[in-house]
Amino acid sequence: MTTKQRMPSKQSTPQLSNPVTVVGLGPMGLALAEALLRRGHPLTVWNRTPEKTDSLVAQGARRAATVAEAVSASPLTVMCLKDYDTLYEVFDPAGEALAGHTLVNLSSGTPNEARTAVSWADEHGLGYLDGVIMVPPPLVGHPDSVFLYSGSQDVFDEHRATLATMGDPRHLGPDPGLAVLYNTALLEMMYTTMNGWLHATALVGSANVSAVEFTELAAGWFMPTVLSPASFIEQAPDLDQAHYPGDLGTMEMNRNALDHVLRTSQEQGVHPDQPRQLKEIVDQAITEGHGGRNYLALFEIFKKATQTQRP
Amino acid sequence: MTTKQRMPSKQSTPQLSNPVTVVGLGPMGLALAEALLRRGHPLTVWNRTPEKTDSLVAQGARRAATVAEAVSASPLTVMCLKDYDTLYEVFDPAGEALAGHTLVNLSSGTPNEARTAVSWADEHGLGYLDGVIMVPPPLVGHPDSVFLYSGSQDVFDEHRATLATMGDPRHLGPDPGLAVLYNTALLEMMYTTMNGWLHATALVGSANVSAVEFTELAAGWFMPTVLSPASFIEQAPDLDQAHYPGDLGTMEMNRNALDHVLRTSQEQGVHPDQPRQLKEIVDQAITEGHGGRNYLALFEIFKKATQTQRP
Repeated sequence: MTTKQRMPSKQSTPQLSNPVTVVGLGPMGLALAEALLRRGHPLTVWNRTPEKTDSLVAQGARRAATVAEAVSASPLTVMCLKDYDTLYEVFDPAGEALAGHTLVNLSSGTPNEARTAVSWADEHGLGYLDGVIMVPPPLVGHPDSVFLYSGSQDVFDEHRATLATMGDPRHLGPDPGLAVLYNTALLEMMYTTMNGWLHATALVGSANVSAVEFTELAAGWFMPTVLSPASFIEQAPDLDQAHYPGDLGTMEMNRNALDHVLRTSQEQGVHPDQPRQLKEIVDQAITEGHGGRNYLALFEIFKKATQTQRP
Repeated sequence: MTTKQRMPSKQSTPQLSNPVTVVGLGPMGLALAEALLRRGHPLTVWNRTPEKTDSLVAQGARRAATVAEAVSASPLTVMCLKDYDTLYEVFDPAGEALAGHTLVNLSSGTPNEARTAVSWADEHGLGYLDGVIMVPPPLVGHPDSVFLYSGSQDVFDEHRATLATMGDPRHLGPDPGLAVLYNTALLEMMYTTMNGWLHATALVGSANVSAVEFTELAAGWFMPTVLSPASFIEQAPDLDQAHYPGDLGTMEMNRNALDHVLRTSQEQGVHPDQPRQLKEIVDQAITEGHGGRNYLALFEIFKKATQTQRP
């Protein structure tokens, strides 16, 4: 993977890492550029506001005057922009300069936006790989920092060494929508888990229990015991097989528990929406015939676009 | 704690553990009764449907004909019934037989229901402790299985040895509502985390990713890294201090991410309610002036009973 860096060059100067261009220097783009510079990649940068390139130029990067010039400077351009619309605004003016180069897009978006970007790149003769960064800017460049990619396996393999400079690159499959899809799914897990903790802490807080006191019990004992990562891995095959036996606990029993959560939230005067929605979805599952199955049968409800009836 | 069991008796027969009565023999009541029997507690049982006592009688328990007789048989009665209404239905007929005895109530309910039960017990001269069982029936009786109790410290201390027969007893404080309050809060953490995983799995499933494949990544890498119990413990003091600096990420940035989650759910044809509600709550936080703070500022929204506007 790093053969080029380690093999002695035939010339007297040492062989450098591959040149890379970074377009878009928000906090994340800046972190990517700095990681690439640290590992010796000749770096060209472009940003709509040129002042943002100053610190990188001081560290040895080259500032391009136009996006066409930036893309032309390196076989690979890495970009992290606000969204896919910005991608077209920024790169369309580069026109024919794009052909024969490769773009790795680390912006956020939806799977359809990623798939559309592949067609756009094809029209311009531009190699394209879609990716997402799963760590905050300070962790960019660490070998454990996961980057998820999807789309062309060839493009991924060709640039794997450069991608590895930024973190731990993982290729999810040929569907270019997979990286952003995994990203949104993982973010949703993060937000629901955070909201569960925040609302639960508000609930006990209504009886003057401090967040520190509750969290010591919740995270010190309950989460590792009841919500261990291993328990999810153990339950996953049941989802693939739609296997929801109710012998150890049914959806009806969970509705009772969720009714207590909702009534307690109302009684204690905390925000009622989250517990109400937890119960509404279970109500829908029971209406649709899952009352005697276990809680995992909710997966069948989530797979469908039918929203719950709001009373 | 187990002095009575270990000290040689002055009589020639060995000193037995304290007698206990169990009322209500659903799956959980049965597990409690069996744990007590295994550890040598003389056991009296009562259930509305007497047949449910048969297996316990075969193991040496004594069947009481009435609740009055059941309560009179032991200093301590443990009950696990459907709800607090059932508690009154079952125990009121025992009338004066209740006085001088103690009841440990392991049923589900709300904090107000627990507080009301204390007043009811006081009127009957009955010692009372409210508790919740945090493990499923097969784990009852294991020394690591947590039982949360709240209310009278004296009652808890007096019966601690017996309570320890059923699991790991933890006393949360003198407010009798605390045990059920902690229980609902912990359950809410469980449900939100489960729903996050189930919906996220449905989301990637819309692109034919199996639950097993996604969960290996989500639970094998993402959860332990991004959602470690330690990270919650680390963040808890900020909630107590209402300290939400936005320098590493703002509520506005999280709204953008949640917008991607919602749009992706709609695009992929999965259930939209959960991502919509995640976004609605963040919208409310921004409307109330938390846009420049970090995500934890959602705690300020959850502490209030004002529900979000449904469009």
